[in-house]
Amino acid sequence: MPKISQRGLRMPQSPIRKLVPYAEEAKRKGIKVYHLNIGQPDIPTAPLMLEAIKNYNVKVVEYSHSAGNESYRRKLADYYKRLNINVDYTDIMITTGGSEAINFAFLSTMDEGDEVIIPEPFYANYNSFASAAGIDVVPVTSSIQNGFSLPPIEEFEKVITARTRGIMLSNPNNPTGCLYTKDDLQELKRIIQKYDLYLFADEVYREFCYTSEKFYSVMELEGIEENTILIDSVSKRYSACGVRIGALVTRNKNVISTAMRYAMARLSPPSFGQIAGEAAIDTPAEYFETAYNEYLQRRNYLVERLNKMKGVFCPLPKGAFYTIAHLPVDDAEKFATWLLKDFNYNGQTVMLAPASGFYATPGLGKTEVRIAYVLNIEDLSHALDCIEEGLKVYPGTLIRHSKPVALSV
Amino acid sequence: MPKISQRGLRMPQSPIRKLVPYAEEAKRKGIKVYHLNIGQPDIPTAPLMLEAIKNYNVKVVEYSHSAGNESYRRKLADYYKRLNINVDYTDIMITTGGSEAINFAFLSTMDEGDEVIIPEPFYANYNSFASAAGIDVVPVTSSIQNGFSLPPIEEFEKVITARTRGIMLSNPNNPTGCLYTKDDLQELKRIIQKYDLYLFADEVYREFCYTSEKFYSVMELEGIEENTILIDSVSKRYSACGVRIGALVTRNKNVISTAMRYAMARLSPPSFGQIAGEAAIDTPAEYFETAYNEYLQRRNYLVERLNKMKGVFCPLPKGAFYTIAHLPVDDAEKFATWLLKDFNYNGQTVMLAPASGFYATPGLGKTEVRIAYVLNIEDLSHALDCIEEGLKVYPGTLIRHSKPVALSV
Repeated sequence: MPKISQRGLRMPQSPIRKLVPYAEEAKRKGIKVYHLNIGQPDIPTAPLMLEAIKNYNVKVVEYSHSAGNESYRRKLADYYKRLNINVDYTDIMITTGGSEAINFAFLSTMDEGDEVIIPEPFYANYNSFASAAGIDVVPVTSSIQNGFSLPPIEEFEKVITARTRGIMLSNPNNPTGCLYTKDDLQELKRIIQKYDLYLFADEVYREFCYTSEKFYSVMELEGIEENTILIDSVSKRYSACGVRIGALVTRNKNVISTAMRYAMARLSPPSFGQIAGEAAIDTPAEYFETAYNEYLQRRNYLVERLNKMKGVFCPLPKGAFYTIAHLPVDDAEKFATWLLKDFNYNGQTVMLAPASGFYATPGLGKTEVRIAYVLNIEDLSHALDCIEEGLKVYPGTLIRHSKPVALSV
Repeated sequence: MPKISQRGLRMPQSPIRKLVPYAEEAKRKGIKVYHLNIGQPDIPTAPLMLEAIKNYNVKVVEYSHSAGNESYRRKLADYYKRLNINVDYTDIMITTGGSEAINFAFLSTMDEGDEVIIPEPFYANYNSFASAAGIDVVPVTSSIQNGFSLPPIEEFEKVITARTRGIMLSNPNNPTGCLYTKDDLQELKRIIQKYDLYLFADEVYREFCYTSEKFYSVMELEGIEENTILIDSVSKRYSACGVRIGALVTRNKNVISTAMRYAMARLSPPSFGQIAGEAAIDTPAEYFETAYNEYLQRRNYLVERLNKMKGVFCPLPKGAFYTIAHLPVDDAEKFATWLLKDFNYNGQTVMLAPASGFYATPGLGKTEVRIAYVLNIEDLSHALDCIEEGLKVYPGTLIRHSKPVALSV
């Protein structure tokens, strides 16, 4: 039998999806599984998207421009302008999800063996795309104790080498819910300029910030216009994960023209998705208010309940719809697997994402899980019941054997 | 300004799309451009696909399984069974176009510096995906003089090295229209077995074969079940290029499970496209008969007219909807550019794909173009008028200065 590639074998398994077979098995046994493992909200998809698809009357579903339909890119440029992100439509490439935007950005700016610095824990698929491209992720560790706020800038500077090509951020942060401030980003700008690095920013959750401060984009930073690369997606903004439409946005013309070579190789982004994405831009403010209030209520409920559980600690996330919680268990991955394989509470269980897969440093996150608050309060309460009851009877639980873990915010 | 990656700079530009800016400029000047450069048929998309999208009633467009919807994969397995390709639905991964299937296949089976042998000329984007993955394409040259038939098997064996991991074929062939026979594939099987290589086969044009022989798939070859990897797509079969749905099909479980890691990183293939793709499987035979007859008529018309032009030679393609023609010009890329930039015939011109981009050997294909017969006979006739008139007045034409080029089939 011919061999598998070494890089294929090295590809990390998604911490979000690798337990899926256990969840499928639990469902086959008739157990109801609450999915808190994946950022798949139950919020209705923006209705204008679905309407646009129903009204899409063409005889032939053709390839589009490799950078996406011009009409869509122009509307997207208007959307960004309203957010104080001044870009031209030629600075925008429509991609197959934010995933493809990350992939194109990495391939266009980094070679095999190059390094990108990312505060950990970080969205696990950054690791996957880096691994697929032969790029090394260099982590700078943030801590649950201060709500995963941006590590001191010196920590970034310490790990810069001759191979460092950029710094990557998710803001608001997936998986931590941390929100980096304008001051944080100004700090980062200094070293971006000093070392002439790229600043990759995944800002797909910008509509979901729960503080009084206005969200500040890296695209607003002056003086590093050719260093900043924005990753965007319709998935979370319009609760349309399956549409698979994202965008790569940069004022650096060399990056756009290089990314275009990758884009041309795959011909075009999905046509149906582009129609939906373009229509979504006219989504009225009420849609976002409803979603926002819903997420805020869920967050508050989730965090309060988690912190009331013995030995559990969860900082208050300020944006997006995730949190990382510390659990009183020997190994969060074993616990998450056990919840699916060997446990149910009144015929129900919960799927969590073990946080170790969101860290690049081996051994970190072993007692943490990422929880996505993407289910309505009722479902969320059932899911939390499962966690609470599970922690009591899980063979590797620590709450019977030790004092509650002392952690402060 | 931060640097572009070396691999980005090395990425070949698509010969199919790199002249697009000139075509756009011509259109802005009011010139009608006939697109023979790209496999974008004017045949109506299979109606069941569009109906399915119109009737798609969901509240939330969710991520799907990373390998694609199970219901779709099961129906696709039935479709393959009808073609004598016996696979289970677990052998099938739904991808974002055939492009992503190629990408996943390459990354899962080859490392940087590994080699894949491909008869040239070949679909240019194989080069792009190989380049993006750091894989070297080793060409075995086929010749316009014998209709680009499969080179002798010894030619393949000659270029096998310790880094060779596979052989790739497109059958029926894009860009040549050549159709490899069962005997050809049995020959290839010998060296696939002997060297334990992968056999990657892009068979997206299987419904369009214009000989009396039944199309024979590599998946029918016995004894190399774990070596064969099938690339598929709905784009051509159902004239649905913009839908961006393809498939990676292999009975090699290690390849599927490795490809799944790449698939999980990008979460899922497009949901709308999957709905359309699943519906397409019930497309009635009449749809294919109509399309088939249309392509056959176009092919015959195109090849006859081309071969009547002074100095032009075009073999008779036996499948797909492309042909490679030799033109009496100094440089086909210059000619194709000139047609868009400096020429029009009654306010019309034509866009061709220079064939050099379909060869890996430098210097080959310089006087050849790929022509896609994707337009109706009337448009095709206007497009051919443009080629014919263009050849008379193009500054680098050879027909005024030399005898017609003598080439025999």
